[in-house]
Parts: sequence; structure tokens; C-alpha cells
Amino acid sequence: MSNEPAGVFEFRPDKELVVRLKHDSDVIDSITRLAEKQEIASASFTAIGALKRARLGYYDQRIHEYREISIDSPREIASCIGNVSLKDGQPFVHAHVVLADEKGNTRAGHLLRGIVFAAEVHVRRLEGPRLDRTYDEVTGLSLWEAK
Amino acid sequence: MSNEPAGVFEFRPDKELVVRLKHDSDVIDSITRLAEKQEIASASFTAIGALKRARLGYYDQRIHEYREISIDSPREIASCIGNVSLKDGQPFVHAHVVLADEKGNTRAGHLLRGIVFAAEVHVRRLEGPRLDRTYDEVTGLSLWEAK
Amino acid sequence: MSNEPAGVFEFRPDKELVVRLKHDSDVIDSITRLAEKQEIASASFTAIGALKRARLGYYDQRIHEYREISIDSPREIASCIGNVSLKDGQPFVHAHVVLADEKGNTRAGHLLRGIVFAAEVHVRRLEGPRLDRTYDEVTGLSLWEAK
Repeated sequence: MSNEPAGVFEFRPDKELVVRLKHDSDVIDSITRLAEKQEIASASFTAIGALKRARLGYYDQRIHEYREISIDSPREIASCIGNVSLKDGQPFVHAHVVLADEKGNTRAGHLLRGIVFAAEVHVRRLEGPRLDRTYDEVTGLSLWEAK
Repeated sequence: MSNEPAGVFEFRPDKELVVRLKHDSDVIDSITRLAEKQEIASASFTAIGALKRARLGYYDQRIHEYREISIDSPREIASCIGNVSLKDGQPFVHAHVVLADEKGNTRAGHLLRGIVFAAEVHVRRLEGPRLDRTYDEVTGLSLWEAK
Repeated sequence: MSNEPAGVFEFRPDKELVVRLKHDSDVIDSITRLAEKQEIASASFTAIGALKRARLGYYDQRIHEYREISIDSPREIASCIGNVSLKDGQPFVHAHVVLADEKGNTRAGHLLRGIVFAAEVHVRRLEGPRLDRTYDEVTGLSLWEAK
């Protein structure tokens, strides 16, 4: 049936880490580093705060390439939703954000880089099966295995 | 007191399902189907990914009708937050999204339909009381019972 | 190392409260009131719904002051992500939102005030250490203690 999910993986919630990121650190690198230190192979997370600058990605679904969007001035992190799974056996962070400027106007997309002014992250560590990303031909992305 | 919530329902977190939606499926139909198969009566979820196209809703608070907004080209799912509860005794999915185009510009609202390019969903199944939506006269919406 | 988080606090997920906010109440006041009544010292939450009007904040990182953005007409809550921790020993709610108008256009930022049309909140109560906000000189904000 066409609306069956391609893959469903069952986990148990484990600990929830409440994290203050360091001023001037990068969001993706910081959460990756946390996952490595805490041995987090699977997690979901949300974050709010503010960035000094950022680089967003938009994936071109036709040519299978990311286009980059540079944000060179301070923004609120109006929303950040992400997950941790494994890629090449290492913790891999995937996050999308909505950023807002001083008028409340927004830019959003895949978070490639975000330099922290202040950021509060809630990471829900999950216990369960190994969740690996592998190359998917249809999309050109690294996705969880269909099963 | 005017800032008391209208209803508070207490649950225990149960399993967390990590879900890869199928390419070309509809987000709402897919999560509804998952809830039916997994007997999920209550859940909260978040998702990120990308859509080929979508239809959003804006609820007109004055005339109590949804206006529809068509998005006919590919977008990033910059944010998706939703929940599952019961309507007419069946699992009912309620989700809001923020979508982003190739410049990072956004459109957002109630998700009526979203055709998946790739999508990663974390569904937190909840154990607790029956949570039903019933018609609310003040808003014209199906809301959880006040109590 | 520069990408170490400034603070990591470990919690266990406790109950999840599914909450319908009251029509005409304020989002921040309502969740604060709920936290007081339910003795919630730490939590993360998400919400969707619609507001009659709102006031957003953008924090000026240079002069360390919030600028306010007034939203005087109805909007969808396309996304709301927030947390509860302690400030001066009392539950303190921090939330960011993305709001959408009838065309799907967005405004976003720190939520100072939001008058509810209808709103559905999932609050994940956390069990663990005391999490206090204290003044941070670098940002001028009240942040969780570095450790």
C-alpha cells in the first residue's frame, strides 16, 4: 500500500539531556561531539536560542545537490528539530531550523552550520536497534534502511 | 482563573517509533496508517525532511473555515510538529509545518497534504487516558474535552 | 575544545502532560501556571494551534536588549518549542514560535505573549538535577549554569 512507511524502528526513551551549547561553538559539531562522548547512537532533539550567523541548505530534488544559503547576521533560532543516527558507523546529526531576524522575518532549511550566541537543546536518547544511514538511489540522500 | 488550562491529561511515555516515510506517500495518511497499525491512540511527533508539494490550511477564526494554500513545488520541511488523538473513535493526526524554498523563504500552517520526497519522523507513543476530539462551539474546531 | 557544550544536565523522562489551553488565555502564563500547579521544575514542550494576537521578541546581541514585534491579527502557531526550568527558584517558561498568516507567510521569534484561539501542548516533565537560570555576562541573558 502506497502510504505504508518505508521503515519503522522501535525504540525506548532513555535519558533526556538538557544542554547549553557554548557561545561561539557550532550547533552541528557540538551535538555531534556530545553524541560521541555520551555514546548516543539514536536520538531526537529540539533546540531554541540565537545564532550569530548560519549556513542553511536546500536540497534540489531534481539535480540531487544542496544549494547553500548564507545568513551573515544574528538570528533567533525560532525552531530547531533534529535527530541522531549512524552514518559510516559514527553518530550523525541531521537538523532543520527556522531562523528569525529583528523584524521577525524568517529563513529556514537544513542546518549546515550555526554559530551559537546562546542555545538550549533537549536531546532524547533512544535505546533500540542500530539505525544506519545508507545511500538511497531515488533521492540521492543518506536515509535509514527501508524495512 | 483565566490562565488555567482548559484540559490537562496525564500520560506515560511508551515506545518511540523512528519512521522513514515512503517516497511519494502523503505525510498525514502515512502517520494515520502507522497509528492504526500500531494501535496508537495518543502520541506527539516531530518530523524533518522534504516535500515534493503540499497543501496548507489557515483557519479563519472569524468565519470558522479553513482557507487553503497550495504549494506546487519542492520544499524543505523546516519544522513539523504534530499529535495523534482520537476522532470518532479513530486515530486522528493533527500537524503543523514550516516549509522552505530554495532561497530559504518560508510558508507555514496547518498541514492538509504533503507529498514526501524524504521524511524522518519521531513518534512518541503515549500511555494513558482516552483522548477524544469533540466539536467545540467557541472555535468551531474538534478539540480535546475540557476538564 | 571549542565545541564542547557549556553544560550538560542528565534527566529521566517522567510523565507527559497533554494540555488544551484555554481560549483567550496567554500561552506563557498558562504553561507557567501549569508548571506551578504540577510542580514541574524541568520540562521540554511543543505546541501547535492558533493565536488571536501575539508579541514576539528579538534579542539584539550587540546592545543586549529585546526588541518587540507586535502581531495584532490571528495567526496559526506553525511551531512552538519551549522549556521549563527555574529562575529565582520559580518555574520559568522559555518558548520560541513561528506564526503564519492567511497566505502562509511567517513571523517568528521569542514568544513574549500569545493570546490563545486554540492550542495543544505536549509537556514532557523531566526528573533530575535542579536546573537554574542565572545571569550570563557574555550574552546578558539568564542561562543555565555552565558545568
